[in-house]
Amino acid sequence: MSVHGAVAERVEVPRGLAGVVVTDTRIGDVRGTEGFYHYRQYSAVDLARSRSFEDVWHLFVHGELPDADRSAAFTAETAALRRLPDGLRAALPVIAAAGGRSGPLAGMRTALSLLGAAKGFAPVYDIDAGRRRRDALEATAAVPTLLTALHRLGRGLEPVEPRTDLSYAANYLYMLTGSEPDGERVRALEQYLISTIDHGFNASTFTARVIASTGADVAACLAGAVAALSGPLHGGAPSRALDTLDAIGTAERIDAWVREQVLAGERIMGFGHAVYRTEDPRSRMLREVAQRFGGPRVDFAVAVERRVEAILAELKPGRELHTNVEFYAGLVMELCGLPREMFTPTFAAARVVGWSAHIVEQAEDSKIIRPAARYTGPPAPVEVPRR
Amino acid sequence: MSVHGAVAERVEVPRGLAGVVVTDTRIGDVRGTEGFYHYRQYSAVDLARSRSFEDVWHLFVHGELPDADRSAAFTAETAALRRLPDGLRAALPVIAAAGGRSGPLAGMRTALSLLGAAKGFAPVYDIDAGRRRRDALEATAAVPTLLTALHRLGRGLEPVEPRTDLSYAANYLYMLTGSEPDGERVRALEQYLISTIDHGFNASTFTARVIASTGADVAACLAGAVAALSGPLHGGAPSRALDTLDAIGTAERIDAWVREQVLAGERIMGFGHAVYRTEDPRSRMLREVAQRFGGPRVDFAVAVERRVEAILAELKPGRELHTNVEFYAGLVMELCGLPREMFTPTFAAARVVGWSAHIVEQAEDSKIIRPAARYTGPPAPVEVPRR
Repeated sequence: MSVHGAVAERVEVPRGLAGVVVTDTRIGDVRGTEGFYHYRQYSAVDLARSRSFEDVWHLFVHGELPDADRSAAFTAETAALRRLPDGLRAALPVIAAAGGRSGPLAGMRTALSLLGAAKGFAPVYDIDAGRRRRDALEATAAVPTLLTALHRLGRGLEPVEPRTDLSYAANYLYMLTGSEPDGERVRALEQYLISTIDHGFNASTFTARVIASTGADVAACLAGAVAALSGPLHGGAPSRALDTLDAIGTAERIDAWVREQVLAGERIMGFGHAVYRTEDPRSRMLREVAQRFGGPRVDFAVAVERRVEAILAELKPGRELHTNVEFYAGLVMELCGLPREMFTPTFAAARVVGWSAHIVEQAEDSKIIRPAARYTGPPAPVEVPRR
Repeated sequence: MSVHGAVAERVEVPRGLAGVVVTDTRIGDVRGTEGFYHYRQYSAVDLARSRSFEDVWHLFVHGELPDADRSAAFTAETAALRRLPDGLRAALPVIAAAGGRSGPLAGMRTALSLLGAAKGFAPVYDIDAGRRRRDALEATAAVPTLLTALHRLGRGLEPVEPRTDLSYAANYLYMLTGSEPDGERVRALEQYLISTIDHGFNASTFTARVIASTGADVAACLAGAVAALSGPLHGGAPSRALDTLDAIGTAERIDAWVREQVLAGERIMGFGHAVYRTEDPRSRMLREVAQRFGGPRVDFAVAVERRVEAILAELKPGRELHTNVEFYAGLVMELCGLPREMFTPTFAAARVVGWSAHIVEQAEDSKIIRPAARYTGPPAPVEVPRR
């Protein structure tokens, strides 16, 4: 019988479900007061400093870091999944043509949705854990290919076919530009990608899990996650922090600009975070990555960071406002040669590994996520007026 | 500053957020113990009995039932929005070709996602309430067109262009078959559609609102809702109830079949509901609609309902198991000439009116929905092993 249990009592919780524990997870956590976040039992920043993207991806998929042999096998396995199915390749020019006005995430959402159909993904509740992992792996591995193809098609360029002999990060830059990237940029991008795979129970991850809780297929869950990511409140828009650098322009203008913004009650993009009350550990790591490149742009960004933090400490004492991940993420992606409109898609190319792990984990729960609402309109029923 | 407030305390709630009040709504409610549900302040079933689909759609969009002049204007306004944008029309054959294996909702999800890009929908937080309503209206009005086009293309048939001189329900049947439907079928379908526009805070409605709470555009929210609807736990699959009729086959087999199912612990599709502890008010209304058609198929369905309820009352005393909406919804759609694979898409063609109203309402809240999870893996940090 399709009976789902007793009618639940109403439970009052904070607005926006803030702090409401929806589920258990073994994937990771954010400890905001400590300025620490982790994937499985490992510091995410330490992973970004010492391992490859594929190693960390393996950690998300299989729950453990691979040894050298397994790493090579996993890298080869995922590289072989980069090519898009024909049904999606044929549609990409149309998706790219339609998508320009709504931004690249709209194209990504559509392409992921179509990928699921082209691959014939089945509902997660109708398949076993191995098949779920496989569907998630196939979708994730295809994301850089579809993102870079949409970007190039939108500029009148032919997509670049993926290569299987390059790492995830190197192949991403290669497909974007058509030429093989240098090792410094590849490693910088890779470290950014690792650092942004997962970060607590944000709205896109939650959306993916709500959809997974109905038993929908992996592509349905991922399309919903991208849909949530495209909202301006979600975050994950590192280009906004570069807008701050652009608006300031030169080092001598920093103080005047920042004071004016703060006194006018304006946000300073790239500063402040919902969870961290310390420096964002991602900022610290990405500052190091940026400083490996050096140069006047990096020096300017570091100067902006120092002055903004000092002025915020003076004008908003006790608020502990520091750079968030967007600030140096934008700078690192710029240094890697990524155009600004690809910053959020690149974020998504990493986050899809986290979403996929959450989808697979949620599917094991097999309990639908279905909350309640409180009706606050006029009392019902009122008689329907005749016409 | 992009600071979102203090770090929230953890709040423990029932699994799957059952009964957890996420938001206030003025759209409607379900009162399970009374066997009653309403849209705004009106009984949904009374609306289905006495008004047109367009009138009830107007109620969802504008908060009140229209008078005759407004009804005519709203009907003309929405009929003019039925034609698909060129960017989507061009893509439909590819979407249809790819979508076969994942079912029609995968195609609907992709097409809605692309519709948003083709129309250049903006994030709901970047536009005013009027523009949100407009985007939602444009998306909703296009749903029958894209659903019927995908269905026909999947069968090697040319899509049928929408007509503006037919009602929502009549045009839907017309685009599906290419011929003008008779009035009895149109009215029956219309009553089904009205009865299924909204029904509490189900997973698809919740998904639409979570995505809207990030500020994403209307198409992103709707694509996510369809993604959630495609999950087997969501419900809204009226074809499953017809499978029950098929499995039983003839009236004399009812008792033996039902007893066997119940004793084997199997579900009987079309019976039992998460919320109603009485007869489902939608079943009662749709039974009347089916009985207007009459004939042996309807008589058989009524006989199955009576016997299943009687046997369930005997074998599962006190459980109050009655037909749910799926049972007679499937029968009514069959009587209207809809093929079974179009049952859930047809459900979605009505529910999109409800989703849209929820998206517009959620966008007025401008508070992101972002809950928490409890980390239950091994304690972190463990030192990252070297390779």
